[in-house]
Amino acid sequence: MQITILTTGGTIEKTYNEHDGLLRNYHTILPRMLETLRLSDLEITYEQVVFKDSLEMTRDDRRCILEATQRALPHSDAVVILHGTDTLEKTGELLYKELCDLTIPVILTGAMRPYEFRDTDSLQNVTEALLAARLVAPGIYAVMHNRVLRFPGVIKDSDCLTFTKP
Amino acid sequence: MQITILTTGGTIEKTYNEHDGLLRNYHTILPRMLETLRLSDLEITYEQVVFKDSLEMTRDDRRCILEATQRALPHSDAVVILHGTDTLEKTGELLYKELCDLTIPVILTGAMRPYEFRDTDSLQNVTEALLAARLVAPGIYAVMHNRVLRFPGVIKDSDCLTFTKP
Amino acid sequence: MQITILTTGGTIEKTYNEHDGLLRNYHTILPRMLETLRLSDLEITYEQVVFKDSLEMTRDDRRCILEATQRALPHSDAVVILHGTDTLEKTGELLYKELCDLTIPVILTGAMRPYEFRDTDSLQNVTEALLAARLVAPGIYAVMHNRVLRFPGVIKDSDCLTFTKP
Amino acid sequence: MQITILTTGGTIEKTYNEHDGLLRNYHTILPRMLETLRLSDLEITYEQVVFKDSLEMTRDDRRCILEATQRALPHSDAVVILHGTDTLEKTGELLYKELCDLTIPVILTGAMRPYEFRDTDSLQNVTEALLAARLVAPGIYAVMHNRVLRFPGVIKDSDCLTFTKP
Repeated sequence: MQITILTTGGTIEKTYNEHDGLLRNYHTILPRMLETLRLSDLEITYEQVVFKDSLEMTRDDRRCILEATQRALPHSDAVVILHGTDTLEKTGELLYKELCDLTIPVILTGAMRPYEFRDTDSLQNVTEALLAARLVAPGIYAVMHNRVLRFPGVIKDSDCLTFTKP
Repeated sequence: MQITILTTGGTIEKTYNEHDGLLRNYHTILPRMLETLRLSDLEITYEQVVFKDSLEMTRDDRRCILEATQRALPHSDAVVILHGTDTLEKTGELLYKELCDLTIPVILTGAMRPYEFRDTDSLQNVTEALLAARLVAPGIYAVMHNRVLRFPGVIKDSDCLTFTKP
Repeated sequence: MQITILTTGGTIEKTYNEHDGLLRNYHTILPRMLETLRLSDLEITYEQVVFKDSLEMTRDDRRCILEATQRALPHSDAVVILHGTDTLEKTGELLYKELCDLTIPVILTGAMRPYEFRDTDSLQNVTEALLAARLVAPGIYAVMHNRVLRFPGVIKDSDCLTFTKP
Repeated sequence: MQITILTTGGTIEKTYNEHDGLLRNYHTILPRMLETLRLSDLEITYEQVVFKDSLEMTRDDRRCILEATQRALPHSDAVVILHGTDTLEKTGELLYKELCDLTIPVILTGAMRPYEFRDTDSLQNVTEALLAARLVAPGIYAVMHNRVLRFPGVIKDSDCLTFTKP
């Protein structure tokens, strides 16, 4: 099974810089994260599309994510997008609007706590996204915290620190 | 969503005894494991049915697992069974034969490396089993290492240290 | 053996807030950290003196640390101070100047990477500080990264991200 | 500072074999363990002398450890020996009897729980042994769990799972 993972930064990929004490999107941690999972049936390719806090994402950035997804569709069985949670719903709605006649699932995920932290939820979420990639019907989804939510209408619940569909 | 988890021991729940240096099925680690996952939508109840290395499981033990599963069916949306990998396929085939007209999924999972180890695959597998519980059709499954395999016919691939369906 | 630990915040005790994504000195992680070490011979009491990034420490804050140390001296076999690394040397020099006729060691330590991170150096440094507390002569020290440096004259080497004594 | 580490196996270096489910002394984990510590001032060389559960150590094995220690003395500032805890005291007493006129410390350490476990004490013990290597007078020591115990007369306290000197 062929999976394309698009990384865009966000909390999940923030890392700590010991020189200035800042937690930022410096470089992808995706290969390190994937090494800790057992995924022998998946052929994963990944691409870093943009790389920033999702609060700083512009319309152009979201356009880039859309285009990278479109390029990945023909040769992927599923596309997984790592995304900051603050504007994940905006990107999800854009993909929903622009990608008609999808024949594979496109799954957005992220984390409330960066991968480098001991108590991160990133491994749970990426594990879930990669399993949902096998099981769900074509469409745009947010997958996180044992929830599988189909766009449109997915929103971040900032009090509960997760996603929901009212 | 109401999940019943039946624990039966096996590698996933082996723990280390510092007094005698043995790695055995002393007590369940399920509550500790679940605390590290974010599962706010699930109501999980669990029951320790038998608790041993699955190589030592008798016909009676497998009968107990079958009966515990039958008792759980009416009030569960899915049943997840933690099981030793060495005879997981035997229990799976028994459940397949005895549980006709299932209306919910019954998912067997386990681990190649116990939960207490740094590089365990148990969190990945339990995360996957709990997500598959939401997504798959009624039936008996082995879920592990990003694989979702439906009984009958699932076997352990001892060379590759995972499950497969030839 | 009676150890007093004074916590003052700094990198070692920064924790992540999932609501605003900030890494700050919210609350001490000392009890959680100590639980992971085997220290059955030590009787540890701890006090939170100030709690901030050490770049924001005022003269008054350092005065508070000095006074807390003075209060601890009579009933301690050693005092360990958790401190931000950016101004650890300032506090060390103040303690050196003000605490004459010491009869026990006073040991400053901290971390380049907060305790909550997977690859933190905090456990190494606290382990070392607590062992040095048993072994070194009375005096003021910085202990970190397998280095035991006696004040005066200790400085942070910002390139190498550790302490040194030129 | 030049440190020689002699590895001899024991609990600290037991690893899990997923094929047969056994926890044994297969290969040293010392390089992996050292990578997680910040030790830029130490030049560490290591040698695997014997490699087994210390309950299986013969008189000849202990002789090998003695000879490896003697070979290391001239070019080391300290020797650290990783050893199973069950017979660590026997090896310590032998070294004490045979190594007169020591000019450097020789430090035995180990662990109650193997390095590969999440809650291992091995990192604490190795960190302590490497700091004690800087600070103690020439002699033979057991260093573990914030204790620095000088031979002769060190024994394992099997109830408390640590070393003591009655």
